[in-house]
Amino acid sequence: MKVIRDPIHGYIELDELTLSLIDSPPLQRLRRISQLGLSNLVYPGANHTRFEHSLGVMHLANILTSGIDTVSRDEKQELKVAALLHDIGHAPFSHVTEGLVKHYTRQGHEDIKEIMKRTEIADILDSHGINLSKVENHIQGKTDFGKILNSEIDVDKMDYLVRDSHYTGVAFGLVDHMRLINEMQFYENNLVVTEGGVKAAESLLVSRFLMHPSVYYHHVSRIAETMFTRAVDDLIQQGVLEPSELRRMDDSRTFEMIRNNGGYAAELASKLDDRKLYKRALYVGFDEVGEGVLRHRKNVRRIEAEIADMVGINSREVLIDIPRDPEIVEMKALVKVNGRMLRLDETSHVVATLEQAHMDNWKMGVYTTKEHREKVGKAARDFFDVKKTVKQFRLTELEG
Amino acid sequence: MKVIRDPIHGYIELDELTLSLIDSPPLQRLRRISQLGLSNLVYPGANHTRFEHSLGVMHLANILTSGIDTVSRDEKQELKVAALLHDIGHAPFSHVTEGLVKHYTRQGHEDIKEIMKRTEIADILDSHGINLSKVENHIQGKTDFGKILNSEIDVDKMDYLVRDSHYTGVAFGLVDHMRLINEMQFYENNLVVTEGGVKAAESLLVSRFLMHPSVYYHHVSRIAETMFTRAVDDLIQQGVLEPSELRRMDDSRTFEMIRNNGGYAAELASKLDDRKLYKRALYVGFDEVGEGVLRHRKNVRRIEAEIADMVGINSREVLIDIPRDPEIVEMKALVKVNGRMLRLDETSHVVATLEQAHMDNWKMGVYTTKEHREKVGKAARDFFDVKKTVKQFRLTELEG
Amino acid sequence: MKVIRDPIHGYIELDELTLSLIDSPPLQRLRRISQLGLSNLVYPGANHTRFEHSLGVMHLANILTSGIDTVSRDEKQELKVAALLHDIGHAPFSHVTEGLVKHYTRQGHEDIKEIMKRTEIADILDSHGINLSKVENHIQGKTDFGKILNSEIDVDKMDYLVRDSHYTGVAFGLVDHMRLINEMQFYENNLVVTEGGVKAAESLLVSRFLMHPSVYYHHVSRIAETMFTRAVDDLIQQGVLEPSELRRMDDSRTFEMIRNNGGYAAELASKLDDRKLYKRALYVGFDEVGEGVLRHRKNVRRIEAEIADMVGINSREVLIDIPRDPEIVEMKALVKVNGRMLRLDETSHVVATLEQAHMDNWKMGVYTTKEHREKVGKAARDFFDVKKTVKQFRLTELEG
Amino acid sequence: MKVIRDPIHGYIELDELTLSLIDSPPLQRLRRISQLGLSNLVYPGANHTRFEHSLGVMHLANILTSGIDTVSRDEKQELKVAALLHDIGHAPFSHVTEGLVKHYTRQGHEDIKEIMKRTEIADILDSHGINLSKVENHIQGKTDFGKILNSEIDVDKMDYLVRDSHYTGVAFGLVDHMRLINEMQFYENNLVVTEGGVKAAESLLVSRFLMHPSVYYHHVSRIAETMFTRAVDDLIQQGVLEPSELRRMDDSRTFEMIRNNGGYAAELASKLDDRKLYKRALYVGFDEVGEGVLRHRKNVRRIEAEIADMVGINSREVLIDIPRDPEIVEMKALVKVNGRMLRLDETSHVVATLEQAHMDNWKMGVYTTKEHREKVGKAARDFFDVKKTVKQFRLTELEG
Repeated sequence: MKVIRDPIHGYIELDELTLSLIDSPPLQRLRRISQLGLSNLVYPGANHTRFEHSLGVMHLANILTSGIDTVSRDEKQELKVAALLHDIGHAPFSHVTEGLVKHYTRQGHEDIKEIMKRTEIADILDSHGINLSKVENHIQGKTDFGKILNSEIDVDKMDYLVRDSHYTGVAFGLVDHMRLINEMQFYENNLVVTEGGVKAAESLLVSRFLMHPSVYYHHVSRIAETMFTRAVDDLIQQGVLEPSELRRMDDSRTFEMIRNNGGYAAELASKLDDRKLYKRALYVGFDEVGEGVLRHRKNVRRIEAEIADMVGINSREVLIDIPRDPEIVEMKALVKVNGRMLRLDETSHVVATLEQAHMDNWKMGVYTTKEHREKVGKAARDFFDVKKTVKQFRLTELEG
Repeated sequence: MKVIRDPIHGYIELDELTLSLIDSPPLQRLRRISQLGLSNLVYPGANHTRFEHSLGVMHLANILTSGIDTVSRDEKQELKVAALLHDIGHAPFSHVTEGLVKHYTRQGHEDIKEIMKRTEIADILDSHGINLSKVENHIQGKTDFGKILNSEIDVDKMDYLVRDSHYTGVAFGLVDHMRLINEMQFYENNLVVTEGGVKAAESLLVSRFLMHPSVYYHHVSRIAETMFTRAVDDLIQQGVLEPSELRRMDDSRTFEMIRNNGGYAAELASKLDDRKLYKRALYVGFDEVGEGVLRHRKNVRRIEAEIADMVGINSREVLIDIPRDPEIVEMKALVKVNGRMLRLDETSHVVATLEQAHMDNWKMGVYTTKEHREKVGKAARDFFDVKKTVKQFRLTELEG
Repeated sequence: MKVIRDPIHGYIELDELTLSLIDSPPLQRLRRISQLGLSNLVYPGANHTRFEHSLGVMHLANILTSGIDTVSRDEKQELKVAALLHDIGHAPFSHVTEGLVKHYTRQGHEDIKEIMKRTEIADILDSHGINLSKVENHIQGKTDFGKILNSEIDVDKMDYLVRDSHYTGVAFGLVDHMRLINEMQFYENNLVVTEGGVKAAESLLVSRFLMHPSVYYHHVSRIAETMFTRAVDDLIQQGVLEPSELRRMDDSRTFEMIRNNGGYAAELASKLDDRKLYKRALYVGFDEVGEGVLRHRKNVRRIEAEIADMVGINSREVLIDIPRDPEIVEMKALVKVNGRMLRLDETSHVVATLEQAHMDNWKMGVYTTKEHREKVGKAARDFFDVKKTVKQFRLTELEG
Repeated sequence: MKVIRDPIHGYIELDELTLSLIDSPPLQRLRRISQLGLSNLVYPGANHTRFEHSLGVMHLANILTSGIDTVSRDEKQELKVAALLHDIGHAPFSHVTEGLVKHYTRQGHEDIKEIMKRTEIADILDSHGINLSKVENHIQGKTDFGKILNSEIDVDKMDYLVRDSHYTGVAFGLVDHMRLINEMQFYENNLVVTEGGVKAAESLLVSRFLMHPSVYYHHVSRIAETMFTRAVDDLIQQGVLEPSELRRMDDSRTFEMIRNNGGYAAELASKLDDRKLYKRALYVGFDEVGEGVLRHRKNVRRIEAEIADMVGINSREVLIDIPRDPEIVEMKALVKVNGRMLRLDETSHVVATLEQAHMDNWKMGVYTTKEHREKVGKAARDFFDVKKTVKQFRLTELEG
């Protein structure tokens, strides 16, 4: 047994199997992929990586399964491995370049199976008698037990919420993960939270909701990430970078590539280096732009040019950032109360609300340089036909 | 400047005025009043006192007012004093005996003014040119500035949520109080939270909501506190203890009194000492008993006897615990977003829900000794005409 | 398995055996014995109890033994029980009244065996096939394995240093106890620290050294504790209190007793309630008074009277506080480095120094009321023949 | 006033001046320089940067000076700026490449004055009426007040010890920095610690001593850093990299350069990427090799070849790592006790010992690949004439 020191969980134990996996290149690469993309431009402490997160998830999966009798010894091994490997398909800066890769390669996270097969991981699993396909199924949440890794209330979120709080200093993520783990079971093949864990489950979902606008979708990170994505896209368009290659690269190689390539990409890189970021010309919610905005997602480059044209500036100076559908988070987590299995959103007012409340966090942005802010804002407002809605959801406004 | 070490806020600074106040008997008494009543029977670390809480509230009030220009130097002093003194009227074990005192004396927290006048506090304030009535008005939240101490989002809650988390080990109370304080202002004489603090405000209200059932109304504390209250009531009924006297007593004197008085009170004290607690025979929500239950609050002793009679046991072996109305927490906190002042519950789905969700936390209990649990439960169920409602608020039940 | 929430270690697991023990009166009494005596007069957060400390020690003992193969299943049980029970012989306010009990009863901590036998603990152990004598031997550190509970580097210290830091807010006690536990083994029946734990072991010993003057022997606690001890002694002298009875009493009963007894004891109690403490008239180190001072320890009452007489005040107004010999802490902890077993003080300069440095922490005090401070100081200085030594241990003094 | 969120100090306030400085390229570069070099290969959480450390030092300097009346308003500004800028001369991976730069350029940290002058910093200072030379003098510790930044007990250490603990998870650095800051003063132009801070000062020095081998000189980091330095040296030798250029580069650019250059450097980079590190063939203390070893520091490359030759392997497979003189840390910190100013090492046994104990931390290493470990070890042992000394400093060895 070796141990590794983690600021969140204390000592994390590694057996011979997990140690071999950790020493393989696909996991070592995660040391060089930051967990929160460019959020360190907002929270200077947010430099943590997918590597330590993966260790943390493995650690929690281990604790969770060790308390559940119905999981066999072999399945425990599989789940531990799945937890450790669940992020090996991530592109540089985590989610930042993910959209691009998907756009060009038309596939989601690289088939993790492929990565396992083309690297020494397949051999390691084989020599320990572990079935590679089963591991992948757990990672995708396609198995019952895989739900501990990939469902609404899973050890992935427990680790990242607490970890992201530790490194950003934002207290919202401080979830009582040990209580939750203590109160999770399998009941008729479903992952359920038992009565004593309901408040902790609520707290996890609320934490995630609060971390969204404060950290994960903080407007400054989003601006930086849009700039970065644009620079990488430029390299792809020039044929300098093969999109599928990104899944093998790390943060620093990607950044160096855009720095060194000259042209627009290098210009953006230099702005990111010196934190001379674009500003918000438009930043509006779903109710202000309407559902129609989503169809523009595919033509972002064209619209950037159009808006730039409208105000007579270079199209490089307009960046558009339209997230996917407002996440209608359907809360499907199950709880077991008085011997009955219910959906959490049917027993908890707060959770039921979160489905709706998450929509409020959706925002689209149009960014430009400081000096063009006003006119770009006006043009974008026209283009997207922004309605003047009142932000509040009930209409009474207070005097004063 | 003297400093005092606090595990929550680090160093708390004391000037000559606050030092004199702290050295007065009414504040020293708070060292001997536990903050969370008998919660230490559930959370062994919960032994903290009203004294350190009072220091903490003063500390936070100080930071908050120091960042607001419109508060004059004199008002800052008054508010600091008000923060420090806001709990001097508390009875032993904080809220535990409070109900009794109110029941018998027909007055709320002892007029804090009276305490100030009958002790050296009046002189101290006088010698520093501080108006005693103004201090009291701030404490009662009757002034605009007093809202920082006594409203929905106030420094009192900020301190106790974080402090109670520290000592119980329950993570729910970990509120980002420094962000919130940074984002509070006065706008047209109203205490408002500015845009950057909205998430922190939501988080405070959610924290409080989650701490309620997990800590403040944990059923084990409630049983113990009902037992304790019953013992004290016994002393009052016997004429041994004058109810108004409680406001001058501390935890240990009160406990010794019930231990030493023999009879039923001593029996309960001994059970509490050894943690041989009554058990829940009935524990049901508002929807199960209906609003009518509230009228029984005045006749609790009589109903205990009646139920005991129904099952043929001594009335000492039945304890009934009916809390006040399900707290319809009306969320009146104000936020200032884009130059407009709105109610927080009108801009936040989550907060709007909490008003309703707080009702779910209401529970009444009938407690008895282990061996009589079943029959007392049945009798109580009859007496209170408990309906079999489904706990969830939507009706769909899952198969499985 | 039940769990109990602890702010230091998270969840502490209780099996049926430990749960029964915890529910017995001798352990429940520890809920009402504060861990740090009257230190809460200096650190308002220091209200934690021997009860939670005992749970913590059990928890750590459990983790430590579970990692050591040579400890049999039965011995693990015994050690767990020993850890849980190790403090049941403590008198009220922990160490405060301990001296008195020893003085009058001429025995150390009550034979823990006696407590076990006279309470339900004996039966509980018996029904689980656990040998009571073995448990006691572990507690006394008379067995090899008992060293984990009672030696220089033991789980008792690991728990209390971290716990006392948490509640006082003083950072000195933050020891890396999990690393230390990970690095402890038995080697040829000796408890040893392996190479990777040497720095953690040094850190534990340094922590303890730093906590001494800052917390455990803070002069304000010492004054309060001397006052308290004097009051209790008064009751004993009057025949109101049987010294051996103290071991069954708790903090609040003891305090109430001195409050209610009138006379000098009640006067001191009232001063403690209102924190009107005596002041230091003399407070000097070992080098200033010489070894001879130790022989005065038995005649403290007579000398108090003598000094009071010298300055013409009531002997009640002088309190003398002479601790035992300057603790020549001999550091016997063993480390295993490169396959060889050595004494820690022979491989670590820092630890070797601590033996000497602990002597610097020894101080004796003469306390009196504020107004008599100067003259009592002068008289005491004469009486004890205080030498004007230079405090530093090398003689060079800097100009300036 | 803007605020920035820091996991260590909470909110750090920025005025217009510090905000401008932070937005300048030399400070933004520090975002991309890790604080602990390659320590993240040992402690996966250690990804924090010089940037956040610089903010932290500024924050503490600010608190410290705000409590000292004798520092003028202008000096406070200068010191704040000096604190913020004190690390702008650091080379990539902090100390890792520093040795190389010094070796080749024969100058220490780039004259910070030069950096200020060649960047926008000079203008920013000028426009705020701040004297650039004074700032530099403070940074170098050449002024009296500069001692708060650059002496034995300074805010630089306070920040990095606590920060490094937070990110590595190693508890040794948890210093009570707020107590220390509260207890620091200037007395006759000397920075002194007052009586109440002596234990906190001891604790800071002990922390630093314990962090050395556990974090700063952990053997795994040292191996990685020796590999990295060797790769960079290779680029310099090939004329690909100008040593002085390093001071303008960041971590990722430097790493990419060695990855991309082919040859030995790329091979080492790939080993570092995959964490296939060299192993210790020899790792011995000062007493084992004698003072003479220091003269070899200049001929490391030649000796590597020589040893490789002795065992018939490629000289690339031997790396030698000889640190500078065992740091004879002379403890010059001053304390003010009873109105007299003394050296801390003259009043504290523990501190006096640290001077000596630091020598024990000195170790030199010879590293090679796993398969050559034994023979390289033997050859190196011969070459350096390693004496078999007993590690302990007293000679008694225990049996067993």
